[in-house]
Amino acid sequence: MGIVVMKFGGTSVGSLERIRNVANIIAKKKDEGHDVVVTVSAMAGETDRLINLLKEIDEDFSPREYDQLVHTGETASSPLVAQTLISMGYPAVSLTGYQFGMITDGSYSKSRILDIKADRIFKELEKGKICICAGFQGVDPKTDDINTLGRGGSDTTAVAIAAALKATVCEIYTDVDGIYTADPRIVKNAKKLDKISYNEMLELASLGAKVLQSRCVELGMNHDVDILVLSSLEEKPGTLVTKEDEEMEQVVVTGVVSDKNQAKITLTEVPDSPGIASTIFNKIAAENINVDVIVQNVSKEGNTDLSFTVQKTDLIRAKDVCSQVAKEIGAKEVLADGDIAKVSIVGVGMRSHSGVAAKMFTLLAEMGVNLMMITTSEIKVSCVVEEKYSELAVRTLHEAFVEE
Amino acid sequence: MGIVVMKFGGTSVGSLERIRNVANIIAKKKDEGHDVVVTVSAMAGETDRLINLLKEIDEDFSPREYDQLVHTGETASSPLVAQTLISMGYPAVSLTGYQFGMITDGSYSKSRILDIKADRIFKELEKGKICICAGFQGVDPKTDDINTLGRGGSDTTAVAIAAALKATVCEIYTDVDGIYTADPRIVKNAKKLDKISYNEMLELASLGAKVLQSRCVELGMNHDVDILVLSSLEEKPGTLVTKEDEEMEQVVVTGVVSDKNQAKITLTEVPDSPGIASTIFNKIAAENINVDVIVQNVSKEGNTDLSFTVQKTDLIRAKDVCSQVAKEIGAKEVLADGDIAKVSIVGVGMRSHSGVAAKMFTLLAEMGVNLMMITTSEIKVSCVVEEKYSELAVRTLHEAFVEE
Repeated sequence: MGIVVMKFGGTSVGSLERIRNVANIIAKKKDEGHDVVVTVSAMAGETDRLINLLKEIDEDFSPREYDQLVHTGETASSPLVAQTLISMGYPAVSLTGYQFGMITDGSYSKSRILDIKADRIFKELEKGKICICAGFQGVDPKTDDINTLGRGGSDTTAVAIAAALKATVCEIYTDVDGIYTADPRIVKNAKKLDKISYNEMLELASLGAKVLQSRCVELGMNHDVDILVLSSLEEKPGTLVTKEDEEMEQVVVTGVVSDKNQAKITLTEVPDSPGIASTIFNKIAAENINVDVIVQNVSKEGNTDLSFTVQKTDLIRAKDVCSQVAKEIGAKEVLADGDIAKVSIVGVGMRSHSGVAAKMFTLLAEMGVNLMMITTSEIKVSCVVEEKYSELAVRTLHEAFVEE
Repeated sequence: MGIVVMKFGGTSVGSLERIRNVANIIAKKKDEGHDVVVTVSAMAGETDRLINLLKEIDEDFSPREYDQLVHTGETASSPLVAQTLISMGYPAVSLTGYQFGMITDGSYSKSRILDIKADRIFKELEKGKICICAGFQGVDPKTDDINTLGRGGSDTTAVAIAAALKATVCEIYTDVDGIYTADPRIVKNAKKLDKISYNEMLELASLGAKVLQSRCVELGMNHDVDILVLSSLEEKPGTLVTKEDEEMEQVVVTGVVSDKNQAKITLTEVPDSPGIASTIFNKIAAENINVDVIVQNVSKEGNTDLSFTVQKTDLIRAKDVCSQVAKEIGAKEVLADGDIAKVSIVGVGMRSHSGVAAKMFTLLAEMGVNLMMITTSEIKVSCVVEEKYSELAVRTLHEAFVEE
């Protein structure tokens, strides 16, 4: 039996009753003969409570003080889990980021993991102890300062620990029981996947499926760590995120997703000269606005229309930036549209099956859905459509590609 | 202008509004040209909230996990104070026990300070920053484990930092404005003292005046750190705890205090043979019960009566232990009395003035107060009396010794 790393999110440790449930899951794993290392998030609501205190002092707070404050949420939840296990007769120790050797790069509030010096974890495991590691936090040894990893940082912590320990598997416990072919609230016949490739999961993660953060999947892919997504509320097989295999390639479309948190900006009659796109997107980037899909139409009379999507919450800021830029570069006008959604199909099988995109466009056309933007990668096709068609599109595509 | 160390308790940082008030006091000190280092407690109620969570899991919790959990209270309050100062335009950094080099002895929940490696504090002060140090916590470098210092640990932290930095003064801000000759709620004419000697303060601290913990006064005495007790709520001169001087010796009685949190146990007809007292008090100590006054009557027919006082909360446990011991050693019976109080007068002037104790006994006798136990030191006389006489005794003694 090898080392198993388990991760429990904020909802799973949101109350002492839930923590008891988590402790039972951990104890069972230990009883099976595994060495067990656990990562926990802060109790649900605690991180927000701390951030709100800081924001009440100053919306424009110091990132260093943010990290010094916010990491206490995970630091406090881990000893509560450890104590529950100890009281059940399972020797356990809670460990802070500093104690389990989590070394980060010194950037506050969105730090990257540089290394995990796992000696302490190995020492505790040798003594037969279960290690409860505070997620989301590390220390920069150059300054002794605390760094947090950004939202979703506890998933990343778990996978990084699994990589450092060469663990058999990293189990991520959430409030859903796995990855589905579509959102079950939209598609009645959505099925849980037994497994999915890292690449497909990455496309799904960045496309709006909120189960796993992209960073954590990338880390798993780079270090060959299998990630098992499971429910902490009911005992059920979950979904394994793992290396691509032949079986996966048989399936053309693994999942259908929509993302309604999208908005579209169009600059019309942009002079089509070198460096214009770079000017626009550098200004957008300088405002910390993430751009997703970018489409540029063919040039007509030396002018072109340029469209791109941003998060809905960034729409007003993005429009302001573009209005300024439009004047500078001599574009005609800036149009903003918040009523859009991005609908995507994902599957590694696309690589060896032709006509998938064409079939998707036909299906959407037959429903009378206008395609505003299209982007593709090797393993996905995304279409930006009017928001009101979003659910219908997902249902139809799921029926045609997945249920068929 | 030298280094000033300031300490603010949990009530003083109990809300963001109170933290703003604290930040104003700190900023004013900085404006006066001092280098400023601050120690803070957890926000009022936070430590109890965390302890209650742990107790709800298991009353008999792991001391290690207690420390891992409870220190987060101070870790979280310090960045809130630092951020408030930063937002006011005063550069500040919060520092955890690990970051400001607080090295402790490895014993959980009641650790002793071994050393403070203050390089980081000096470096930050050189950069012109105000250091906000989390009180109550340190790290054992042998294990990297977190140790807390026990209740009142933030006062001790402040004095230890002042000693390490050779600070001019350690200012302890509380919700009272200094040390009084008696509790002003009991004695209308109680006066605030301008200064008091370490030794007198130690007697008062252990006698039930709750302003400063004994440990912190001892530390100040051993390292020659002047401690100034002040109010964080109003600007007033406080009381300086400092080395004894001639002026102090002129005053016979500096303060009158009563402690109602006392209870008395009597073992009657204890066989008067060597080792009996040691047997009794070892068993009591093994139960972690602190004994205060001990009185043994003269032996009569080979038997003696032995009385001692404990904290009221320990009375039932102490009685249980004594009932067992009484059987073992052949004592007659165990009497318990919870309705007592200890009334004391304290003053370095007693050393050079005779008849003080006699005068105290006379005054109490004239009131018809029966003295159940008497203990004295060089600078104090304590009498255990019926609880109902406690206030009357304090008032009468204050009038006779202090107001005269």
